[in-house]
Amino acid sequence: MGSQTGTADRGESPGRPDPRAARSKAVAIATAQQLLAEQGWTAVTHVAVAARSGIGRTTLYRHWPDATALIRDAIAQCLAVVRPRRTGQLRTDLGQELEALRRLLHDPVGERGTRALIERTGVEPELTRLREALCAASLDGFRVVVEEAKSRGELPSGLSTELAVDQLAGPLAFRRLFTDQPVPPDYVPTLVDTFLRCHGAAAPDS
Amino acid sequence: MGSQTGTADRGESPGRPDPRAARSKAVAIATAQQLLAEQGWTAVTHVAVAARSGIGRTTLYRHWPDATALIRDAIAQCLAVVRPRRTGQLRTDLGQELEALRRLLHDPVGERGTRALIERTGVEPELTRLREALCAASLDGFRVVVEEAKSRGELPSGLSTELAVDQLAGPLAFRRLFTDQPVPPDYVPTLVDTFLRCHGAAAPDS
Repeated sequence: MGSQTGTADRGESPGRPDPRAARSKAVAIATAQQLLAEQGWTAVTHVAVAARSGIGRTTLYRHWPDATALIRDAIAQCLAVVRPRRTGQLRTDLGQELEALRRLLHDPVGERGTRALIERTGVEPELTRLREALCAASLDGFRVVVEEAKSRGELPSGLSTELAVDQLAGPLAFRRLFTDQPVPPDYVPTLVDTFLRCHGAAAPDS
Repeated sequence: MGSQTGTADRGESPGRPDPRAARSKAVAIATAQQLLAEQGWTAVTHVAVAARSGIGRTTLYRHWPDATALIRDAIAQCLAVVRPRRTGQLRTDLGQELEALRRLLHDPVGERGTRALIERTGVEPELTRLREALCAASLDGFRVVVEEAKSRGELPSGLSTELAVDQLAGPLAFRRLFTDQPVPPDYVPTLVDTFLRCHGAAAPDS
C-alpha cells in the first residue's frame, strides 16, 4: 500500500507540489492527530500511522524523517488557530482570548498536543521550540490587550503584564490540564470579571 | 551484577524485609528519578536503570513488573512532601501552600514528574491515579485554608473554593510548566496579595 503515492512523490519538483503527495500528507497528519488524541505522543510513530492510514512507510519517512517531526507537524497544525480579532473593549477582548484558549484545551488534539509540549519541553528541542511558538501565539494576544488597556488607563500602569497573563490564562489552563476538569463556557466571564475587579477596572465596557 | 541481591530477595519473607533488597530498591528509585529529571518519563526503563545503577534487571523486574510501575514509584516518592502546618493566618497559610507548590515545581524530579503526570493522564491508568493523588494532596491544603477563611468571614462566603484554588495555584503552575519560566520566591507574596485584594480581604493578618 502507498507505493503509488510513493512513486508519485519521488517525481515531485519543489515548486510544483503533487496533489497526490499533498493528499497523502494530509491523511497522514490527520491519522497522526487521531493517534495523538487517543494515546498521547508516544503512539505517533511511522508504523502506527502507516498501519491505520494505509500510506506506505517509505512515503511517511520521506515527509518526516523521524517521529518527532511527525508529532511536531500533527500538533502544529492544530495549534495554528485563527486569533480573535480585537475590539478595543477590554472585557470583550480578554473574554475572547480566554475563550480561544478554552477551546484549544477542549479540542482533543489541542489538549493532548498541549500536554505533550508541556512534557517534552526541555527534553526534545523541536517540541521545545513548538511550545515556545504556542506560548508566543496564545499569550501575545493577552499581552497586547493588557498593554493597550494599561496605556488607556483601564488597567493600572504598575501592573506587571506577565503577572496579568498568568492570572488570566493560568487558572483556566490549570483547571483543564492539572486537575483534568472540563472548563465550562461561563468560567471565562467569571475569570474576566474577577480579574478586572481585582485590578480596579470594575465598570463594564460601555 | 545484582545477582547477589536477587538471591537475597528471593529468600525474603513478607514480614521481614531484607536490608539489601531495601537498599537496592532505594538505589533503583534514585536512579529512575535521575533519568526522569534528565530526559522525561520515557527514559525510565528497566534497561536504563540497570545500566546506570548496576542493579540486575531480574531484581528490577521483581520489584517493578513494568516500566509504568517504576515511573510511578519514582514520581510518587518525590511528591510525598511534608504539607505545610497551618497557622490560621490566611495570608501566611496561602503563602505556605503556594511556596510548597513553587518548590515542588523547581525540584528537578518534582517538575519533570508533574509534567509526566499532566501528559500521561487519561492515557495511563496508574499515572492518572497518581495525578489525582497529587492534586488531592497539593490542592486540599489550599481548599481547607480557603474554606476556613470563608467560615471566619475573611473571604466572601459566595466565593467558589474551586475558582479560588485555580486563581492561587493556576498562575504559578502555568508560569512554570507552560511558559517554562522560573518562578522567583517573591512571586508568591505578590500572588497572595493580589488574590486577597481581589476578594476584599486587603488587611494583612494581625
